Amino acid sequence: MAVLLEAFSQEYKRKIEDRMMEIVAGLDTPGSLKSAMSYSLEAGGKRLRPLLVLAVLRAFGKDPHIGLDTACAIEMIHTYSLIHDDLPSMDDDDLRRGKPTNHKVFGEATAILAGDGLLTLAFGVIANQEQARLNPKVAIELVAELSKAAGAEGMVGGQVADMEGEHRDLHLSELEYIHVHKTGKLLSYSILAGAILAGADEEKRKHLREYAYHLGLAFQIRDDILDIEGSEIKIGKPIGSDETNHKSTYPALLSLDGAKDKLSTHVHLAKEALLQTDFQQDILTEMIELVAKRDH
Amino acid sequence: MAVLLEAFSQEYKRKIEDRMMEIVAGLDTPGSLKSAMSYSLEAGGKRLRPLLVLAVLRAFGKDPHIGLDTACAIEMIHTYSLIHDDLPSMDDDDLRRGKPTNHKVFGEATAILAGDGLLTLAFGVIANQEQARLNPKVAIELVAELSKAAGAEGMVGGQVADMEGEHRDLHLSELEYIHVHKTGKLLSYSILAGAILAGADEEKRKHLREYAYHLGLAFQIRDDILDIEGSEIKIGKPIGSDETNHKSTYPALLSLDGAKDKLSTHVHLAKEALLQTDFQQDILTEMIELVAKRDH
Repeated sequence: MAVLLEAFSQEYKRKIEDRMMEIVAGLDTPGSLKSAMSYSLEAGGKRLRPLLVLAVLRAFGKDPHIGLDTACAIEMIHTYSLIHDDLPSMDDDDLRRGKPTNHKVFGEATAILAGDGLLTLAFGVIANQEQARLNPKVAIELVAELSKAAGAEGMVGGQVADMEGEHRDLHLSELEYIHVHKTGKLLSYSILAGAILAGADEEKRKHLREYAYHLGLAFQIRDDILDIEGSEIKIGKPIGSDETNHKSTYPALLSLDGAKDKLSTHVHLAKEALLQTDFQQDILTEMIELVAKRDH
Repeated sequence: MAVLLEAFSQEYKRKIEDRMMEIVAGLDTPGSLKSAMSYSLEAGGKRLRPLLVLAVLRAFGKDPHIGLDTACAIEMIHTYSLIHDDLPSMDDDDLRRGKPTNHKVFGEATAILAGDGLLTLAFGVIANQEQARLNPKVAIELVAELSKAAGAEGMVGGQVADMEGEHRDLHLSELEYIHVHKTGKLLSYSILAGAILAGADEEKRKHLREYAYHLGLAFQIRDDILDIEGSEIKIGKPIGSDETNHKSTYPALLSLDGAKDKLSTHVHLAKEALLQTDFQQDILTEMIELVAKRDH
């Protein structure tokens, strides 16, 4: 199962991580800041977002390497958002992927600045590859869409909505708004970025947007299910915390079985969207299957 | 004195502020986030950075309006940096320009996110104007240079160095490193952005970089002097705080007279740099004079 994806992931995960570390190591900046930025980038994770960029390029028959820097930029944005989310004034988390959170190691001020540094760097990484080889029109579209997906209209807006919804019961539509923005927009951007880099036409982008939408929601529903059924060791944080914190989740709103049904529906619709296109969808199909079955 | 600059500032300050508010008002984002972002953008200030972009364009005989969105993006970066600097874990300031700081009004989490939102938005504002009329090569150069000036190699790096230097006596070279990065890089970028937008050649950019370097240091030395000689009401925050906090400053290292001499030298060298070029330097000359004499 997921044989192709596993081989693909094995080939590119390391390249993504090496390239990110190379970029940060090359920065002319105070050592403590560089350490704090590297610490969270190195902390591991599935690298789902950068792998999506490369998988979409492959689906279009392009060399995935042309998306490497864009993929790294997205992972930097994702990483900064985790650093800021974990802060005492936000989720106040001590552990992330089984390691102490950034502010626990480097202090709150440096953690905030490491996040700011990664966010700012991401845009530079996209822009600088233009100077190497990318068409500037492509590079600027990548910048414009990243700003939209990661900013107030996307991920940052979703984080605010999430905070505001914390202490009351949410309707399903409110829960969906939060997830579509907080997690979905950057996942969707990863897929869109691959399509932009591949020069995909509007018709293909439309189907990929649909795939991305269902992938994002499937990802989040699985997250909620894992908080009930998952293994603490594999996830790297305590399970059952959603219920303890009276957090609105899919299982809480729909029952555990209802959430599982909804997950299946999104997986089905994501696959359907891929079938509307004529590119090589094998790895993207395995990707949605993995998202739905992952144990961490 | 500064007659041209005053007229220029009167004409464009309002346009910059209106355009910034228009951009934020148009965002599809939770109301509280929009309010927090607007609050700090509206809080006033000299708008020195955006005015520099437009003044450089004017010096090249270009219509300053072509730099309006870039100018707004820079002010958004400056504003986010103030919001994050004021946080309890950073400078822990309650007042900024005579008004309660962002986190005092909206809470720490929303303040962090408002900063993240403004930083992310700035890159989108630059990229989106390309879709309207800017040459994409120009737009992508603006993005790349902004990332460098505002990030770990620029402003964010300077902020970390400043924090780390807080509790010990600094050498003059260390103090200069902090200011060149923390304040200087974004001021320099404002001038560079005007030159990029004007299509200035490398020769002209070189002289403008020199002007920017001296302007940045003059700005900071004046800041340190104002903390001793300034008026609390005009500055909008308590004076004498540098000495209370045992902060390394130019007057502390060079004596007050020594700092004033150094300020004069930088003003002189900034003007010299302008004389090496053949553009209309009147407003830029008034700008450095104002920076050296400002009372807030």
